[in-house]
Amino acid sequence: MPSRPSKTLETFDNPRPEHDYTIRIEVPEFTCLCPKTGQPDFATILLEYVPDRQCVELKSLKLYIWSFRNEGAFHEAVTNAILDDLDRALRPRFMRVTARFNVRGGIYTTVVAERRAPGWEPAAPVALP
Amino acid sequence: MPSRPSKTLETFDNPRPEHDYTIRIEVPEFTCLCPKTGQPDFATILLEYVPDRQCVELKSLKLYIWSFRNEGAFHEAVTNAILDDLDRALRPRFMRVTARFNVRGGIYTTVVAERRAPGWEPAAPVALP
Amino acid sequence: MPSRPSKTLETFDNPRPEHDYTIRIEVPEFTCLCPKTGQPDFATILLEYVPDRQCVELKSLKLYIWSFRNEGAFHEAVTNAILDDLDRALRPRFMRVTARFNVRGGIYTTVVAERRAPGWEPAAPVALP
Amino acid sequence: MPSRPSKTLETFDNPRPEHDYTIRIEVPEFTCLCPKTGQPDFATILLEYVPDRQCVELKSLKLYIWSFRNEGAFHEAVTNAILDDLDRALRPRFMRVTARFNVRGGIYTTVVAERRAPGWEPAAPVALP
Amino acid sequence: MPSRPSKTLETFDNPRPEHDYTIRIEVPEFTCLCPKTGQPDFATILLEYVPDRQCVELKSLKLYIWSFRNEGAFHEAVTNAILDDLDRALRPRFMRVTARFNVRGGIYTTVVAERRAPGWEPAAPVALP
Amino acid sequence: MPSRPSKTLETFDNPRPEHDYTIRIEVPEFTCLCPKTGQPDFATILLEYVPDRQCVELKSLKLYIWSFRNEGAFHEAVTNAILDDLDRALRPRFMRVTARFNVRGGIYTTVVAERRAPGWEPAAPVALP
Amino acid sequence: MPSRPSKTLETFDNPRPEHDYTIRIEVPEFTCLCPKTGQPDFATILLEYVPDRQCVELKSLKLYIWSFRNEGAFHEAVTNAILDDLDRALRPRFMRVTARFNVRGGIYTTVVAERRAPGWEPAAPVALP
Amino acid sequence: MPSRPSKTLETFDNPRPEHDYTIRIEVPEFTCLCPKTGQPDFATILLEYVPDRQCVELKSLKLYIWSFRNEGAFHEAVTNAILDDLDRALRPRFMRVTARFNVRGGIYTTVVAERRAPGWEPAAPVALP
Amino acid sequence: MPSRPSKTLETFDNPRPEHDYTIRIEVPEFTCLCPKTGQPDFATILLEYVPDRQCVELKSLKLYIWSFRNEGAFHEAVTNAILDDLDRALRPRFMRVTARFNVRGGIYTTVVAERRAPGWEPAAPVALP
Amino acid sequence: MPSRPSKTLETFDNPRPEHDYTIRIEVPEFTCLCPKTGQPDFATILLEYVPDRQCVELKSLKLYIWSFRNEGAFHEAVTNAILDDLDRALRPRFMRVTARFNVRGGIYTTVVAERRAPGWEPAAPVALP
Ligand SMILES: [Ca+2]
Ligand SMILES: [Ca+2]
Ligand SMILES: [Ca+2]
Ligand SMILES: [Ca+2]
Ligand SMILES: [Ca+2]
Ligand SMILES: [Ca+2]
Ligand SMILES: [Ca+2]
Ligand SMILES: [Ca+2]
Ligand SMILES: [Ca+2]
Ligand SMILES: [Ca+2]
Ligand SMILES: [Ca+2]
Ligand SMILES: [Ca+2]
Ligand SMILES: [Ca+2]
Ligand SMILES: [Ca+2]
Ligand SMILES: [Ca+2]
Ligand SMILES: [Ca+2]
Repeated sequence: MPSRPSKTLETFDNPRPEHDYTIRIEVPEFTCLCPKTGQPDFATILLEYVPDRQCVELKSLKLYIWSFRNEGAFHEAVTNAILDDLDRALRPRFMRVTARFNVRGGIYTTVVAERRAPGWEPAAPVALP
Repeated sequence: MPSRPSKTLETFDNPRPEHDYTIRIEVPEFTCLCPKTGQPDFATILLEYVPDRQCVELKSLKLYIWSFRNEGAFHEAVTNAILDDLDRALRPRFMRVTARFNVRGGIYTTVVAERRAPGWEPAAPVALP
Repeated sequence: MPSRPSKTLETFDNPRPEHDYTIRIEVPEFTCLCPKTGQPDFATILLEYVPDRQCVELKSLKLYIWSFRNEGAFHEAVTNAILDDLDRALRPRFMRVTARFNVRGGIYTTVVAERRAPGWEPAAPVALP
Repeated sequence: MPSRPSKTLETFDNPRPEHDYTIRIEVPEFTCLCPKTGQPDFATILLEYVPDRQCVELKSLKLYIWSFRNEGAFHEAVTNAILDDLDRALRPRFMRVTARFNVRGGIYTTVVAERRAPGWEPAAPVALP
Repeated sequence: MPSRPSKTLETFDNPRPEHDYTIRIEVPEFTCLCPKTGQPDFATILLEYVPDRQCVELKSLKLYIWSFRNEGAFHEAVTNAILDDLDRALRPRFMRVTARFNVRGGIYTTVVAERRAPGWEPAAPVALP
Repeated sequence: MPSRPSKTLETFDNPRPEHDYTIRIEVPEFTCLCPKTGQPDFATILLEYVPDRQCVELKSLKLYIWSFRNEGAFHEAVTNAILDDLDRALRPRFMRVTARFNVRGGIYTTVVAERRAPGWEPAAPVALP
Repeated sequence: MPSRPSKTLETFDNPRPEHDYTIRIEVPEFTCLCPKTGQPDFATILLEYVPDRQCVELKSLKLYIWSFRNEGAFHEAVTNAILDDLDRALRPRFMRVTARFNVRGGIYTTVVAERRAPGWEPAAPVALP
Repeated sequence: MPSRPSKTLETFDNPRPEHDYTIRIEVPEFTCLCPKTGQPDFATILLEYVPDRQCVELKSLKLYIWSFRNEGAFHEAVTNAILDDLDRALRPRFMRVTARFNVRGGIYTTVVAERRAPGWEPAAPVALP
Repeated sequence: MPSRPSKTLETFDNPRPEHDYTIRIEVPEFTCLCPKTGQPDFATILLEYVPDRQCVELKSLKLYIWSFRNEGAFHEAVTNAILDDLDRALRPRFMRVTARFNVRGGIYTTVVAERRAPGWEPAAPVALP
Repeated sequence: MPSRPSKTLETFDNPRPEHDYTIRIEVPEFTCLCPKTGQPDFATILLEYVPDRQCVELKSLKLYIWSFRNEGAFHEAVTNAILDDLDRALRPRFMRVTARFNVRGGIYTTVVAERRAPGWEPAAPVALP
């Protein structure tokens, strides 16, 4: 049963909203088009978030990532746009998006953007020896 | 002498309860079933804890991990459930559970959850050069 | 100046046709669509060849690889098809195509196909200690 | 739509039967039970074959690998059994099965078995410098 | 269409100036000349910055890096000079330049320099477990 | 001239007691016996300390590590015991012992314990960029 | 139930004697004593064999490896002795023993010995591209 | 005392001409210009040879490699040209040149060329287990 | 023109004294003699410093490192002595010396010592996400 | 008890002269002086041999390697000289010496030399799958 790319991000209820915890999702298969040259760009996308009421459903995330396949996108703008879309769909306590683009012209570029919900504070980290 | 999976977590007395110290346990052989598709999922589970009165006995931990083999379990929920079970059995000063799931649909997911005993504070970490 | 995907493989004259030598070309950014599900597949393509009269021009190779982006292609068939296309364009003394596909359903697939020109024999390899 | 484990190996027609070529398939998620202790064993299975008329269909291979999940199996026997099953389903020109089992009792075991079709000879390998 | 080395750093408008975010750029192909011996030196340059109004355009950065190819440059001075040039062109909120030079005389040298815009403070880092 | 295992830890005068500095010692060849099964266990021991008046002499440390070879020892207890013995012999300003045990039953265990001399405070760490 | 070191190597019937296949067993926890100094030596032992009628049982192999723990043994002699013992117990078609000893005096030593059964010839290896 | 790039390859007498032996030289700092775009290219050059009467002097090799810095050179042609130059200067029994170029347009290229002196045969290689 | 080992550390003027920045220098070729046995010891030395008025000149650093070649030196003492010598020659704002010695008697030792100029405070580190 | 460098290579009787087997010895701590500049050179030496009547004793090998510490030695000559010395002392059936020198002038050099006893033939290698 064929599926299609989609900008819709499905969510499910956070099974443990009473505690902060971390969800990390790595997607090595992001591709879009360079707006200047029209040629394909490739990146690995890393999402890290502390869910509030909703978690992102993985199959819809896959279709969402797929939706960039034939879109033109600059590195800095697309990273912020992915963060915006996920922030709007999930309203997480915290989210960070890291996009590591493949080398172009001998240059490797990574863009990292993050948002915190107003009033949310991370717990003091426990650094065990 | 065959053994069987079991939800019972055996413990033994912490041999040095007067000091905080760290126990780290990595279990690369966690497997459960996906509740949506019924198919096997695989993960590496990392436990890190500061014991209080009890430490977890390794053989019973192995049988406990085995007990998920034929259960359906979502990534986020099962990570929190393992933390709950260990927290209930050990009442540690601090515990963190990290579950790194194998790639599915081109996506790698890791879930990290932790609990502190009420009133426990970690010692200020000593970062030697 | 935007460029476009293209099935045309440009060539240039082998600068040293009087000796056998090896050209190895690795393309980590191959992507096509799965004919069953319509979803994107990704692979790294490795070409290894002994040129005869023609060598493949790299920019046209890039556009050729790009041409699969919106085509449906099975792993085994597309590897053989790339070999056919390059064999037709270059008529090399020898060519091998290795396609390492990204994991799908927990399974990693690699396909390797090769052709020799009729009558060509590789020199006995010199294995220096 | 849930699927189930199955011993049936589906095949499809080799798209290029007129040439020998190699298909390599790595399955890091094999698990079975130890016939002595009943406890889970884990392995990575590597298949390498030269197809004749049929290639193995990947989804059915996944269900086949899954079918060992609740079966008792010794390392040496199960490796040879997987080879037998694939040989019977595909009748390949050549097939090799490598099973790398996880450490048990401080010992790492790997079993490698292979079959050739009667009369089939591999082409002399071309070792490019 | 040949291009030429250039000291001019082109910029484009930061697409998301209302939030701090990180841009990391790695350039493994820096080369200059040793002012003492005239011989080539090689380094990998890493830029990390928080853009304010402007981001650096990658093609002009490539031409800028190229502009050092036939210049004499000491390790410590050139690292600071690159930081100065980028700081002047971009006026970033924060920038760090790391230059890892290739071994010379059995010695590996790395130089790291950074600047903050007056009054800018980094957000308290969120260290997710 | 044969030597023998020994519980005696020889020390020598700290050559620079007027400053805090770090000594790190890794011993990959620790082995003892499992008190339950009598079978050998193996671990890598890492010591990190800030010496006060005395440093540990390496040959005697080797004989000390050897002294566990035929002793039964639980992971958690033996790590704390090594820390006690070294603490008693050296009276360091700070000491940490990390014991990484080899996999048993598919489970990897590490234990980390540390002590500070009363009143000693680590210098604020200098994190150079 | 405690177990003990033992020189007895238990075997079981080769489940597929009609074909040659390879069994590889890596034991990273070999230790013995240096006959000159009495101090512990450590090595990783790799066995590779083509079974004939018998395969080595892994638990007895573990006890056999353990039996060297308090014996003096030179590197070259003990490697050949392990090969002799396994050859006598299994009568394999082919066996190779590789012993990689830990560094001593700044020197790393590896010893590799092998035996073939009289009249046994390895099949011509199939080197797939 | 500044030095300059030079096409002259200095040699010295082979100290052991009565036996074949191997000299391997890796130069990670090759750079030239792309003849189409004028932009810098980078490569690692590996030389492997069996000397006859002459060996290449390393300092002159460094100056020779430097001589390509401001020359236009295609990958395939320059690899063969380096082989020609070294062959002419050294008249080795055997020489192989491997040039691994940095990624361009998402594509990694390596070229390998070799020559044997007329009548020279390599000794049958000894493959120790 | 032969050179000689020397205890003299040459310096040059810091080209950017108005800002703190980091210079990291790794020297993998340190060797001295063990004062007890007279035998050679080997180490990798890592220097990290924030220069004040002077930077260390690399060629003189190489000759300085060479000066230990025939001197007896204990691990802890020599690390502190190198720090003293560099501190005296450069008067840096901050300096750290890390000496990682090669394994001896199965034990790996690293010593880390550092000094701050009176009154110097490191800038608050900027940890970009 | 101090020891001294020595050119004498002590041997002991091969414990299993009736079979060919391999002894591999890696010495990462070779150092000598460059005859041109007088400066230290460093290398890793790998010996591989099939013993005949004698094996090399490791402590004397260590003293032998040490004997080069203050000698001038060219890369190609010293590798052949080490082979000559070992060949004279051991009269092995086969010996290979590989010397991997540290980078100098941006160039890495390795020299490999080998000798066979007259009339010795290696057994046909068994390449297990
Ligand atoms: Ca990437
Ligand atoms: Ca996993
Ligand atoms: Ca994962
Ligand atoms: Ca891939
Ligand atoms: Ca693959
Ligand atoms: Ca495994
Ligand atoms: Ca294994
Ligand atoms: Ca570099
Ligand atoms: Ca560097
Ligand atoms: Ca271990
Ligand atoms: Ca070892
Ligand atoms: Ca390169
Ligand atoms: Ca390359
Ligand atoms: Ca070292
Ligand atoms: Ca070296
Ligand atoms: Ca080298």
